[in-house]
Parts: sequence; structure tokens; C-alpha cells
Amino acid sequence: MSTVPARTRTGSAELRLRLRQAREDASFRQDAARLHEDADHPSVRDALLWNLVTEPGDRVAGALVAALGPEDALDYVFGDLSAPPGGADDGGDGRPALRALQEGRSRWGARLEATYLRQAMSTAVRVGLRVLLPGDQDWPEHLADLGDHRPLALWVRGDVTVLSDTGVAIVGARASSNYGEHVAGELAGSLAADGLVVVSGGAYGIDGVAHRAALRAGGKTVAVLAGGLDRAYPAGHAALFERIVADGALVSEVACGGAPTRWRFLERNRVIAALARATVVVEAGWRSGSLNTAGHAATLGRPLGAVPGAVTSATSAGCHRLLRDYDARCVTSAADVKELLGHIGVGSTIPQQDPELERLADVLSARVPRTPEELAQRSGLSVEHVEALLGVLELEGGVLRTERGWRSMPL
Amino acid sequence: MSTVPARTRTGSAELRLRLRQAREDASFRQDAARLHEDADHPSVRDALLWNLVTEPGDRVAGALVAALGPEDALDYVFGDLSAPPGGADDGGDGRPALRALQEGRSRWGARLEATYLRQAMSTAVRVGLRVLLPGDQDWPEHLADLGDHRPLALWVRGDVTVLSDTGVAIVGARASSNYGEHVAGELAGSLAADGLVVVSGGAYGIDGVAHRAALRAGGKTVAVLAGGLDRAYPAGHAALFERIVADGALVSEVACGGAPTRWRFLERNRVIAALARATVVVEAGWRSGSLNTAGHAATLGRPLGAVPGAVTSATSAGCHRLLRDYDARCVTSAADVKELLGHIGVGSTIPQQDPELERLADVLSARVPRTPEELAQRSGLSVEHVEALLGVLELEGGVLRTERGWRSMPL
Repeated sequence: MSTVPARTRTGSAELRLRLRQAREDASFRQDAARLHEDADHPSVRDALLWNLVTEPGDRVAGALVAALGPEDALDYVFGDLSAPPGGADDGGDGRPALRALQEGRSRWGARLEATYLRQAMSTAVRVGLRVLLPGDQDWPEHLADLGDHRPLALWVRGDVTVLSDTGVAIVGARASSNYGEHVAGELAGSLAADGLVVVSGGAYGIDGVAHRAALRAGGKTVAVLAGGLDRAYPAGHAALFERIVADGALVSEVACGGAPTRWRFLERNRVIAALARATVVVEAGWRSGSLNTAGHAATLGRPLGAVPGAVTSATSAGCHRLLRDYDARCVTSAADVKELLGHIGVGSTIPQQDPELERLADVLSARVPRTPEELAQRSGLSVEHVEALLGVLELEGGVLRTERGWRSMPL
Repeated sequence: MSTVPARTRTGSAELRLRLRQAREDASFRQDAARLHEDADHPSVRDALLWNLVTEPGDRVAGALVAALGPEDALDYVFGDLSAPPGGADDGGDGRPALRALQEGRSRWGARLEATYLRQAMSTAVRVGLRVLLPGDQDWPEHLADLGDHRPLALWVRGDVTVLSDTGVAIVGARASSNYGEHVAGELAGSLAADGLVVVSGGAYGIDGVAHRAALRAGGKTVAVLAGGLDRAYPAGHAALFERIVADGALVSEVACGGAPTRWRFLERNRVIAALARATVVVEAGWRSGSLNTAGHAATLGRPLGAVPGAVTSATSAGCHRLLRDYDARCVTSAADVKELLGHIGVGSTIPQQDPELERLADVLSARVPRTPEELAQRSGLSVEHVEALLGVLELEGGVLRTERGWRSMPL
């Protein structure tokens, strides 16, 4: 008799015990009840356990939970793998093959450990999280496009309902330029003012500018973080994250205590791409992580946009790569993003007959009145031209003349 | 009897006489012999007459000459339109319908006038032009893609053979920015150094920069002008045009004495697009004439590229429009242009296995040695990375180490 099956059997017995202990742990159950209203239900409890014992993007776990449901999946993996419920064990019915399950068991089993589980749960309660599970009313249904690769749970601080609203991911380099920050701010501000949720990664640079601009515009924003929500990363964004919690949501797939590792950043990017209906990369170096987010958006078949910049600017090289090699759409304005969404005219009652009107519409705000001079500068049209177009729009009821300038008609 | 047919008949008699006089004019024949070696041939003489009596892009004339040849076409139009050679007169065989021919006759007849014809010819002789006609050995065959819209003749100063070499149109706004001029210079210089002919419109701004960069790189360039070549337009480019004549060619479809009208500029753009194998717009405002050139390139099915820039820059708005709405390819470097041509590796023996090598290859010059520091700066790679890649390339014989730096291996 070889030692390998022997070890596996020994492991199995230990793991069966750990699973029973985890399921029956009073502290875990108490905390779970504060994080999720249906935590008494075994499948909710086990869905939580699945999230806690896996790394983001674990396709083996994803496929197994999708095939068997969280409860049977746990029973199966930590029970006797040689007798799978349902019969076949070769992955032929969409379930992972036995070997992958054996590897998974050892991976997941290492975290099926009371101290770790209790800590993650109690911290989540302490920092005021909610946990969302697939099937929950507030679970963002469009994550289903990720298939087996979808998150097993989302930890959330703030307003969980914004996750299901129409979101646009505005992402980009941490090492952003003034130009990129300016454009990110304009785009995010304008989109948020029009009721779209700005989704980003909470990082320094473009991400931070996008979140801030959305908040400043009185809009909603979602930051998807790579580590547990008990820890602000980057620490310098702690105050920003508090503002996001007040006007949107902080989200992570990783439970409390989880550090933002490189792997988790890459997997986090797929959540950004999947939460948003379209992804726009504002600035990115040749090898920027934002290109990874863009790749996820493309894989998901979601519209992908890239903001061009000077070809002499290293911070735009990644965007140009997206335009050239990945069929990203060239985005120069919020109107372009809306077109990307197939939502031309969102938040605007302005008829968009011709390019000049579109350019003017693009720089009119529903909230901030702007003078013809300002509008001319922002649109690149002449003041005379702007005044003529405003006259037309006023007749059509598309703009409002105020003492301090012109505004587009609010929604 | 109505007056209209009467006038038409009278006109016909007059025009028949004018045609005979033009064909027999001794001064015209003498000059023609100095502009074209086969000028004794009636069809060459008549092809020249067709160019002189038409405006650029006259499709009616183009179709007629294509169907009947220049000699029969003149006989037919200025003879008796009611008895067309070949029978049909309804345009069914590709020839224009009678009404279009009657209108054409009155247009063309107005220029079938001895003083005008002699003047155009004698000026062409005086300023040292050659005239190229379809079918001539040096006629650029790829103009055939224009169909009936092809030029009936090209007036040329300089080296007619460059018109048949592989050319790339580098065009853009007259009101260019420093950025656009920088990029146009880099692209044109690099492409010209690699043996590609830089085709442009001889205007201020991007065009002028492209021509100059090509000349400075020791390459060839072609300026296609909208008016007759006896007059430098713009006048400030007179010296540049002389340099182009020495290292390339000045070309126009319009005979001497013809002013560069707006119509002729637009028709000139089709010649630029058709002479070049690919067109790249470097900088263009929202309504720039360069977009017209781009439109011609697209219509011809020729590859079209656009250089992105800051979305806040009005001089890049047209380029972004091309990227967004006209499927132009995003061009950030000479390597991108070569890829556009389907000629990756033109002028370079460097193996292009990976993006870094491509970026390095892109900034290596066959003529100007560059230090690793310079190459790092131009490519956006680190100096260490550049040195490592140069080591690889040296082993492969792709680069040459000189006292003053590194050069790519010449063609």
C-alpha cells in the first residue's frame, strides 16, 4: 500500500472533523447572523465558508459550488471524494476532475480552521460589513457573466444596492499624469452627475481621481479593493474610503484579514470589469494593471474604451495599445462613454442632431451653470457658434438660461 | 423652334472649329514635344487637351476618356453628340448619359481656347515640368484604384519615378501644435530613412514638417499641390518645394496657371490618398481638410491611421474622430505605420519577437547612432533593459555598435 492514499485518508478524516466544527461553531454562527439575514440557513452558512476558505477566482471551487450548491459541495470535498453525489467524478458534467478536487481540498482545508474563520467573521462584524451571496436580492446579477469565475461572495461596506445600478469602470495608472487626472475627473464627474455609478479600484492616481470626481458631482461610486475591507489600502485613501461608504460602496471578495496580494489585485480586476457595464481606461503604461482590467472587460464581451493621449507620453502607451491591438473604442468625452454603453442621451434631453450640438451637450452641466465663453473653451467651438447653438437648444427646451450661465435641463 | 437646340447647334460648330485649331496649333505642339516624348501621337496630344480643359476629378470626362480613349472622346464630344461612336448614348456601357455630356461640352469648351492652352503649355515648359499620362511607363499604376475619378494627367517637377515607389501619406492640420509637429517629424523621418516615400500636401503645419523630416533623413518626398506648379502655394514654402524637387517630386493635376481653389484642394486630397499605400493623419481639427484625405483613403480601401493626442487638444479632435468613427488604426510610431502597410520589418533586420524589442527597434535609427540612454528615453524602457536587449540584438546581427552609440543594421 502506497503512502499517498493513506495520507489522503488521514487528511480526509481530519478535514471532516474540521468541517463539522466550523459549521457548529457558535461564535461563527453568531457573527454570521449579523452579516447576513439568512445566516441560519445551512446553504448561506456554507456559502460563507466557501468564500472564507478560497482565494478569489478559484475556478475549481466555483465550478463545484455551481454544480452542487455550497452545502453538498463542502460535504463532497471534505467527505469521501470517491463517492461524489450524482455519480460521475471525471468533470464530465461540468464538475472538476478528481485530481483538481484533491488539490483543492488540501488548499481549502488549510483555511478550515477555527481561529482564522472566527477572526475573519468577528472583524467583519466589527467594521460593519454586510456579506452578499449569489442568489441574494442585492447580489449584482451581471456578475453571472463571469461563470465559474464569479465571486463566491462579496463583502460590502456602504449601500449594497448601487452594485446593481448601471456602472462604468473608470480605471488607470497609479502613476498618472496631470492630463490623465484631468480627463478622469471630467469623465467620472460628468457620468456620475448623470446617474451612472463610477466603479474603480480605489488606488492612487486615476482610480482615486475618478472616485473623488464622482463624489464631488453628487454621484455614486464603488471601490473594489483587493484585500479585506478591515484595512484601508492604500492607507492614504482611508478618508476617501469613508466618503465612498457614505455615497456608494466599498467592495471586496476577500474576507477581513486578507492582505492585498498581487494575485488578489489581478482577480479583483475581473470584479471591477464584471460589476461595470463598460470599462474605460484613462491612462495606462505599457504594462499597467489596468490593461488586465481591460482584458477582463473584453473577455466578458463588455464595451471597452480607452482615452488617447500624447504618443510621447509613457502613461498613455497602454491606452494606445488597447486602441491598436484590443479594439478598444477611442473615448474623448463622457458622451463617448454613454455611446459605449448604448445609452446615448442618458441624463440629457438635448437633441443630438449634429457633431457641434453633441460637443456642446457634452460640456453643458445639469448642475453647474456655464457661460458661453466657458462652454466655448471646453467644447473647442467659437463663442459665436456656442451662442447660436444655445439659442437653438433654448427653443427646444434643452437648456436653461440662468443668471450665472447656461445649464442643461436636469433629468 | 425653341432657342435651346439652336444654341447648342451653334455652339457645336464653334467648338468643332476650336478643337481643330487646338489640335493643329504649332505652339502647342512644340511645347507638348518638350513636356512628353510621345507628344506627336494624337492620343497623347488629346490626353493633354483633356487635362487642360477639365477640372480635377471630373467623372464625366474620366468615364468618357476611359471608354473611348482621349482622341475619340474629344471627337465625340465636340463633334456630333447625336452619333456616338459605338452606338449607345445612354450611359449603359459605362459612358455618361447624353445630358451629362452636353453639360460637359459647355464646361470643357470654355477652356478649348488658344490663349489659355498655349499659356499653360509654355509656362509648363518654362518651369521645367514633365507631364505624365495614364499608360506612360512612369505613370503610377496604383492611381487606377480611383477608377473614372483618376487624374487625366499629372504635372511633375523632379523625379517622376518616386511616384511609383511605396509611399505613405503623412498629412495633418495647418494649424498644428508643437506636439503634432514633433510626431510628424519623427514618423516622416523614420519612414523616409527606411526607404518609404513621404507623400503630403505641401501645406504649412504637419505637411511641411513631414516633407522636411523626410528630406533631413535623406529620404524621398512627394508634395501634391492643389494649383499649378508654376506658382508656389503657400509662397513661404517656395524654398522647401525646390528641395523637394531635388529629392522627390512636386505633383499637381492642375496645369500651370491654375489657382489652388477650395475644390482643387479637396480633389487634390484624393490624389494624395491614391498615390500613397497608406494614409496617416497626425493632427487634425474637428473639421480639418485632412479628414477629407482620410475619407478618400478609406474609400479606396487603403489603410488609414490616426495619431492620437490629448483629448483636451482641439488639434487632435479630428484624429480621435477617425479612430472612433472611421475605424482608423491608432498610430503611435513608425513601426505602427509599417504594420499598417503590411510591411512589418521594412528597413529593419531586427527580429520583432516581443513588444520591448519592437519598441527598441522603433527608436533605433539606421543612420543616426544613439546611446542606450537616448534609446531608453525614446522607448520608455529602462537603460538596463535597453542594454540587455541591445546585447541580444547584437548577437543576432540586428544592431551595430559604433563609437557614438547604436544603429540598426542598414537595409
